[in-house]
Amino acid sequence: MPSTSDSGRVALAVDIGGSKFAAAIVSPDGEIVVSRRVSNPQSLDADALFEALVGAIDATLQEAGLSFADPRLMDGIGVGTAAPLDLNSGTLSPVNIPGWRLFPLRDRLTARYGVPVGMIGDAVAVAIGEHWKGAARGNDNVLGMVVSTGVGGGLILGGRVMPGATGNAGHIGHASVDPIGPVCVCGGIGCLEAIASGLSLAAWARSNGFSGGDGSAAAVADAAASGDQVALAAFRRSGDALGMAIAGAVTLLDLDLVVIGGGVAAAGPLLFEPLAEAYRRYAALGFASAPRVVPATLGSAAGLIGAAAVVLAPETYWPGGDRPR
Amino acid sequence: MPSTSDSGRVALAVDIGGSKFAAAIVSPDGEIVVSRRVSNPQSLDADALFEALVGAIDATLQEAGLSFADPRLMDGIGVGTAAPLDLNSGTLSPVNIPGWRLFPLRDRLTARYGVPVGMIGDAVAVAIGEHWKGAARGNDNVLGMVVSTGVGGGLILGGRVMPGATGNAGHIGHASVDPIGPVCVCGGIGCLEAIASGLSLAAWARSNGFSGGDGSAAAVADAAASGDQVALAAFRRSGDALGMAIAGAVTLLDLDLVVIGGGVAAAGPLLFEPLAEAYRRYAALGFASAPRVVPATLGSAAGLIGAAAVVLAPETYWPGGDRPR
Repeated sequence: MPSTSDSGRVALAVDIGGSKFAAAIVSPDGEIVVSRRVSNPQSLDADALFEALVGAIDATLQEAGLSFADPRLMDGIGVGTAAPLDLNSGTLSPVNIPGWRLFPLRDRLTARYGVPVGMIGDAVAVAIGEHWKGAARGNDNVLGMVVSTGVGGGLILGGRVMPGATGNAGHIGHASVDPIGPVCVCGGIGCLEAIASGLSLAAWARSNGFSGGDGSAAAVADAAASGDQVALAAFRRSGDALGMAIAGAVTLLDLDLVVIGGGVAAAGPLLFEPLAEAYRRYAALGFASAPRVVPATLGSAAGLIGAAAVVLAPETYWPGGDRPR
Repeated sequence: MPSTSDSGRVALAVDIGGSKFAAAIVSPDGEIVVSRRVSNPQSLDADALFEALVGAIDATLQEAGLSFADPRLMDGIGVGTAAPLDLNSGTLSPVNIPGWRLFPLRDRLTARYGVPVGMIGDAVAVAIGEHWKGAARGNDNVLGMVVSTGVGGGLILGGRVMPGATGNAGHIGHASVDPIGPVCVCGGIGCLEAIASGLSLAAWARSNGFSGGDGSAAAVADAAASGDQVALAAFRRSGDALGMAIAGAVTLLDLDLVVIGGGVAAAGPLLFEPLAEAYRRYAALGFASAPRVVPATLGSAAGLIGAAAVVLAPETYWPGGDRPR
């Protein structure tokens, strides 16, 4: 069994995704000591979902030999969660977790564990994780993205997390890149996610005759790697939309770096090459053409490390007492 | 002749536009005491442009009976300038002032007047002005826009100015809203400015048969107010593009308010009604559908008031010593 850091205290981090829940013990220098990942039970029962989450947390604490009464455990839980959320009320309504609508996660976790709970979006957590320990280190103005089932994002601007009015800043997946594009699950038109996400990419490939494997984005990636023309076109279409959206974000925000993780991004050059070509077409101003767009390096650890920063590094990422709660 | 504030010290503000240069004396509570506006000489001679600017500044100081040796004048000049600029080098290369390319304005003004000079983008200055004294008062997360000859923007996020890596954050005019749209002067494709600006709006109207007045955006606005169908369609096209771009910015940044000034925005409901319709189509997530998009209220004073904030309110807008220089 891994042991907790000898050198000091540790924090509990939680990652709430559409298909998995995870919890981890994270050391003060941002290393994961113990982690547990369980399937999201896909239930419409809010309490059943909450019990599954609590199970992952309790198992993690037990494996690390910790409780919140233990002075080695820092007082609080950092949560990165699928969005949207509402920081003001401490509730969440993740698009891909239909059993939770305005679910009062902050109050429920606080009641259960008796410690402060700070919530951030899952892609914000990824942005922080990659900034703290991954591909975005040393950059003050960063968009972190997750391109997987959906498309999410989080912003670090001027070296600090930029939460926006309700904690939802970073939602680049629901900015439109095509005025006459497909209707998105959110109800918008031509959203980046409706074109570039894993679900959208795979659906487009299938509707254009792709029938490899199980028809998922991973199957499309496999086929593209073998030269399948429809599969290659599906990645080009996704990369085009991402490049245009990222060019717009860099132009609007004058960023240093964009870092992209998630399952679809794991396809590497299949996605990043058309993305870079599109980026150059749409980011023509000098200051906007310089920034780099790079793959994430921490994988699924990024979200847990970023969530832990709520407890471990609040003065770095939320200076002036703006730590999320 | 207006007199300077009896109650305290005042600051010098400068506004550098593509067609006009302006200077003003601004009181500590953000009121313009004296101002002068002169035509930009449209010269390709960098020094001739600088001398015209200096003329406006000196006339303003003289009218107010002030010099930088006078203890009533706060030590410094706040400059809002047409973009792009580079805060790191203190240079500017405004698209619409071809005589200035990498012009070292900060060093030139510092050498001339012997005081610190802080530069920001003109649309950033408008955002600050409207936040301080205009339509955006009381909102922490604001996009300020200028829709006139071009389309500019500036961001106040978390109550502070968000400059970006090089001082160019806010350039919403050069974010693309149409992947197969017209080529922009910047070299990009489908930029908001290439569709929605006064120049673009008027060019589209003329290419669709409009021949009223002098063919300018103002002439198109006059014709639209009288029910001219091509003119109305031109404003709808501009409003559509603005609504989509603003919806994307609000979704990405989780804003409270968007405030729009500039000559084209002065057309009022002709622009704001199609804009609001388009906004609703493209901003479908709950947090993004709530913010308001409102007209600016300060007119051309906003840019001068915002530029003065560099000297008068640095701790409010650039806390922690991040004041621009």
